[in-house]
Amino acid sequence: MKFGIVVNTNRPRAIAAGKELISWMRKEQIDFVLDANSAENLKESPSVEMENMHEQADFFVSLGGDGTLLGVSHFSNTKPIIGINLGRLGFLAEFCEHEMYDVIKRVLQNNFMLENRTQLEVSVSGKGQVRNFTGLNDVVIEKGTYPGVPVISVSIDNNLVSEYRADGVIIATSTGSTGYSLSAGGPIIIPKSKVFVVTPVCPHMLTVRPMVICDDKEIEVRVETPGDRFVLNCDGMLIQNISPSHQIRVRKAKNTVNLIANERRNYYNVLRQKFHWGKEQES
Amino acid sequence: MKFGIVVNTNRPRAIAAGKELISWMRKEQIDFVLDANSAENLKESPSVEMENMHEQADFFVSLGGDGTLLGVSHFSNTKPIIGINLGRLGFLAEFCEHEMYDVIKRVLQNNFMLENRTQLEVSVSGKGQVRNFTGLNDVVIEKGTYPGVPVISVSIDNNLVSEYRADGVIIATSTGSTGYSLSAGGPIIIPKSKVFVVTPVCPHMLTVRPMVICDDKEIEVRVETPGDRFVLNCDGMLIQNISPSHQIRVRKAKNTVNLIANERRNYYNVLRQKFHWGKEQES
Amino acid sequence: MKFGIVVNTNRPRAIAAGKELISWMRKEQIDFVLDANSAENLKESPSVEMENMHEQADFFVSLGGDGTLLGVSHFSNTKPIIGINLGRLGFLAEFCEHEMYDVIKRVLQNNFMLENRTQLEVSVSGKGQVRNFTGLNDVVIEKGTYPGVPVISVSIDNNLVSEYRADGVIIATSTGSTGYSLSAGGPIIIPKSKVFVVTPVCPHMLTVRPMVICDDKEIEVRVETPGDRFVLNCDGMLIQNISPSHQIRVRKAKNTVNLIANERRNYYNVLRQKFHWGKEQES
Amino acid sequence: MKFGIVVNTNRPRAIAAGKELISWMRKEQIDFVLDANSAENLKESPSVEMENMHEQADFFVSLGGDGTLLGVSHFSNTKPIIGINLGRLGFLAEFCEHEMYDVIKRVLQNNFMLENRTQLEVSVSGKGQVRNFTGLNDVVIEKGTYPGVPVISVSIDNNLVSEYRADGVIIATSTGSTGYSLSAGGPIIIPKSKVFVVTPVCPHMLTVRPMVICDDKEIEVRVETPGDRFVLNCDGMLIQNISPSHQIRVRKAKNTVNLIANERRNYYNVLRQKFHWGKEQES
Repeated sequence: MKFGIVVNTNRPRAIAAGKELISWMRKEQIDFVLDANSAENLKESPSVEMENMHEQADFFVSLGGDGTLLGVSHFSNTKPIIGINLGRLGFLAEFCEHEMYDVIKRVLQNNFMLENRTQLEVSVSGKGQVRNFTGLNDVVIEKGTYPGVPVISVSIDNNLVSEYRADGVIIATSTGSTGYSLSAGGPIIIPKSKVFVVTPVCPHMLTVRPMVICDDKEIEVRVETPGDRFVLNCDGMLIQNISPSHQIRVRKAKNTVNLIANERRNYYNVLRQKFHWGKEQES
Repeated sequence: MKFGIVVNTNRPRAIAAGKELISWMRKEQIDFVLDANSAENLKESPSVEMENMHEQADFFVSLGGDGTLLGVSHFSNTKPIIGINLGRLGFLAEFCEHEMYDVIKRVLQNNFMLENRTQLEVSVSGKGQVRNFTGLNDVVIEKGTYPGVPVISVSIDNNLVSEYRADGVIIATSTGSTGYSLSAGGPIIIPKSKVFVVTPVCPHMLTVRPMVICDDKEIEVRVETPGDRFVLNCDGMLIQNISPSHQIRVRKAKNTVNLIANERRNYYNVLRQKFHWGKEQES
Repeated sequence: MKFGIVVNTNRPRAIAAGKELISWMRKEQIDFVLDANSAENLKESPSVEMENMHEQADFFVSLGGDGTLLGVSHFSNTKPIIGINLGRLGFLAEFCEHEMYDVIKRVLQNNFMLENRTQLEVSVSGKGQVRNFTGLNDVVIEKGTYPGVPVISVSIDNNLVSEYRADGVIIATSTGSTGYSLSAGGPIIIPKSKVFVVTPVCPHMLTVRPMVICDDKEIEVRVETPGDRFVLNCDGMLIQNISPSHQIRVRKAKNTVNLIANERRNYYNVLRQKFHWGKEQES
Repeated sequence: MKFGIVVNTNRPRAIAAGKELISWMRKEQIDFVLDANSAENLKESPSVEMENMHEQADFFVSLGGDGTLLGVSHFSNTKPIIGINLGRLGFLAEFCEHEMYDVIKRVLQNNFMLENRTQLEVSVSGKGQVRNFTGLNDVVIEKGTYPGVPVISVSIDNNLVSEYRADGVIIATSTGSTGYSLSAGGPIIIPKSKVFVVTPVCPHMLTVRPMVICDDKEIEVRVETPGDRFVLNCDGMLIQNISPSHQIRVRKAKNTVNLIANERRNYYNVLRQKFHWGKEQES
C-alpha cells in the first residue's frame, strides 16, 4: 500500500508536518511517494508528477487546508484522500495534525470509512474544440474585466431558466455551497444532499434568487453579451476566457471524490465553529 | 368516479366557475360532491364535510389559486387534486380555467400524469399531549407578539445545528420554497429535489444562512426563551401557541400530496413569469 | 452635581459594580440617586422613580450593556448618559468598568465630550386618541400573531412609497441600524449620518429593498389588512396592538439622546470587533 | 442661450428624436451644438468635441436613457442637463419624449428647477502619478480576472474600517444606490440624502454589510493582494488596472451634476414602477 503525499509548500507548518510524516513512514516502513513540487521543497524523494500520482498511490495524504485538498481532488482520480488540516478548522480537511498518524494506521488496517463527494463534470465547446474537466466545489462563469453587466443564459435539461443580467453565475455542489456560492447569497447545503445550486452573482434583476436543483440535471450556460473578456473559473482557478461562441455544459461527474471520513467529526459542529454560530452578534 | 369540488368562495370568479362546472358535470352525468362551505355559497348539493370528502371523492377539483389548493391538500389524503387557477399564475394550481374541462375529461379516460409532492409531518409534544399534522409548504416557529429576539434551537437527527437568535425558523419543502422561506432569504428549490430547507427569519447572528438538508432527516425545534407567546404556523395557518415545554419534530410524511400534472406547463416558465425574470430592473 | 444611577439588576456583575460605585461616591462625597428598582435590588438609597429621575439627576450612569442604556434613554430627557458596559463590547455603552471612575471624575471637572444621538418621535392616532413616545433605535410595525402576510403601507411626506406585503416594517435611526434592521437586511449606518432607514421584514415582494431617507422627512405607516393582532414595538418593547384604524407617524424628535463620548473609542474598531471582521469565515 | 445635444446613437429612436429636435430648434431659431459623434451619425452640424462642449453649451440635452445621461454627466461641468428618456422609465432621465419641447421652452423662459446631484471625486495615485476623475453613480474596485478572493482594505478618514475579503468594493452616491450597489445588496438611498454607501461585493466574511456614511468623509481603498489584474471602474466604465501600489481616495466632488427637474415626477412613483412594487410576487 502506497501513500501519495502532497504538501502545501507555502506553509512552513505543512512542510514541517510533511518532513515528520516522511521520517515516521520510513521508520514504519510505509511506502510513499511525493508530488514533484513537495519533493523539491522538502528535499525528499521519491517523487512523481502530480498528474501521474494516482497511478502509483493507493491513498493521498493532503497536508495543508481545504484549498490544498481541493487541489489534490483534481488529481486523485477516485483514490481516497486523507485530509490533514494544518490551520483553521476545515470543511474538507477533516483531520487535525495530531490525528494524522492514527488515521494512517487505521487505513493500513483497512479500518476506515469513505465519504463520497459528488463533483461536477464540465465541458466547454467552442470553435470545434471540446474541453472537459471536473470541479469539486464550483464552476463560475463571470464578467472578468467587462465593466458592464453581461447577459448569461442558463438552461436546465434544455429548458431556459433565465437570461440573467448578472456579474456571473456559480454552479456549486453541496461541497462547494460553503464556498463562493455562500458569499454570493447561496444556501448552505449539507453534504450528501443530491442537489446542485445555481447562484447568480450580483443579479441586476432583483427577483432572481439562488436555485437548488436535483443533481441528475444538466445545466447549460452561455454568455450572450458580445466580447471575449468573460472568464470561466473552476474551484478558484482560472480555466479559460469565454465568449458567446462557447457552450458550457455542467453535470454530475461519474466519479466521486473520496475522502477518508473522520468519524469523530460532526458537520454541524464544524459549521457552528467555522461560522461562529455560538457567538452572538447583536447591537 | 366522483369529483370533490372545493371553491374559494371569497372569489366571485371561482364561484362562477364552480357553478358552470357543476352544470356541465350534471349534463355530462359526472358524479360530484361539494364541501359544505362551497355547497352553501353556491346553493348546490350534494355536499359533505371537508374532513370526510376524501372518503367519497376519487379526485379533488380545487377552484381558486395556490392558497385554495394548499387548503385542499390538508384534506385530500392522497386523492389526486386538479388545481384550477382563477387568478394570477400559480405554482400549485397548474390549470387555467379554459383547460378545466379538458383535464377532467382526460382524468375520466384515465389519461393523466401525477405529480407527487413531498409534505412535512409535524408532531408537537408537550405537557403529555402529542399533536400531529401535515404541511405541504412549511412549518414556522416564530416569535408571535414577543417583542425581543427568542432563542430557537434546531437539531437534525439529534445533532444540534444552532441555537438561533432569530424571529423564527421556517422548515419548508421544495414546494414551499417559493413561499415564506423565499421572503426570508431562502433559495428556490425545484420540485422533486429530495431536500428540505431550514430558513431562519431575521437572524441576529449575522453568519447564519438558510440550510438545505436531505429530506430523510428529522428536524427538532424548540423555543429556548421562557414565555408562551411564541407561535407555530403551518402553511400560513396558526396551529397553536408554543412555549419551551413543547418539542416540535418535523420529518417527511409517508404520503405525498398528489397533483394532476399539466404537461403543457414548464416549471421554469412559471418561475420566469411569476418573478418577472424577463423584465430587467436596473438603474 | 448629582448622578442618577441605573443598574441592570438581572446581572450580578452590574449589581456588584453598582455597589462599588456607590461606596466610592459616598467616600468622594459625590451626590447620587438610584432608580427605585436598582435601589431595592442593591438595598441602597436615596431613590426616585425612573420617570422622575431626570428632574434630580444632572447625569445618568447606566450600568449594564446596550440594552440597559437603551432603557435609560427613554427617561434621560436630554441629561447626558455615561454608559458603562459590563459584558460584551457595546455600540452605545462605550465605557468599560475600569474606565468608570475616570469618566465620572472628568464629568465632575466638566471635561467631557457629548455625542448627540438622533431619536425618533412616534405618534399613534386612532379612535380619537393620540399617543406619543420616542425611540432611540427603532419603531417596528409587525404582524404579531397574524399567520399570513399583512399589507403595510408606508408614505414619506405624504407620498406613498409602497404597500408592502411583509411581516413588518422597521424604521430605524443610525443608532438602531445595527440592531433589528440589520437582522432584516438593512445597512449599517455610521452614527451622525442624518438619515433614517425603512427596512421591510421578509417582504413577499422580491424587489423591495431597505430604503435610506433624510431624517427631515415624516414617515407614515398604516396596516391595511383587517384585524387587530398587529403590533407596534419600539426599542424592543411592545407598545400596543395595531389595527387599520391606527395611523403611525414617525419623525425626528426635537431632543437628542446625549451620551458622554469615549474619546478613546473608535466606531470602526467597535464594528470590527462586534462583527468579527478580523476573523475570516470561508470554506 | 445654446443647447448641447447628445444622442445615444445606438438607438434608432434617439436618432429620430434628435433629428426632430434639431428641425424644431432650427425653425424656432434656438442655438444648438452637437457632440462630434452625434453630429456624424445624424449627419448634422455644428459640432464640437464632447470634452469641450461645456464651453459652448449653456444647457445639455441628453437623448437616450439613464446610461446616456450618465455619460453626459462626465462632460457637463455643472451646466444643467435636460434628460430625455427614450425607453423604459429612468431614474436620471426624467422627461419623456413628449415633454421635451415643453421643458426646453421653459428653460428658455428661465422657468425651471434644478436638482443638484452629488458626485464622487476620485484620485488614484501610484508610481508617482496621480489621476483624478469624477463619478455620478459609483466607483468600483474589483477583482477583474483574478480567480480567487482578494483582500481590499477600506479606511474612512484614515481609520481602518475593514480588510474585506471580497470580489470588490463599491462606493456609491445616493444617485448610484439604485445601480450596481443595489445588485450587490446595498440599500436604496433617496436622492439628496447626504450620504454615500460602501457596499462590498460577495464578501467572504459573512458578517460584512453595506455601510452608509456621511458624504463629508474621505474613503481610502487599497488592494492588499499582490497582482495587477484588479480593476477600477467608474460609472460602468473601466478606468484602469489596479495593483497594491495604487492608493484610491474617494470624496465628495466640489461640483454637483445639475439636472433640470421634472416637477411632475415623483421619485417614489419611479421606484414603484421601476421595481414593480405594485405587482406582488408570491407563491
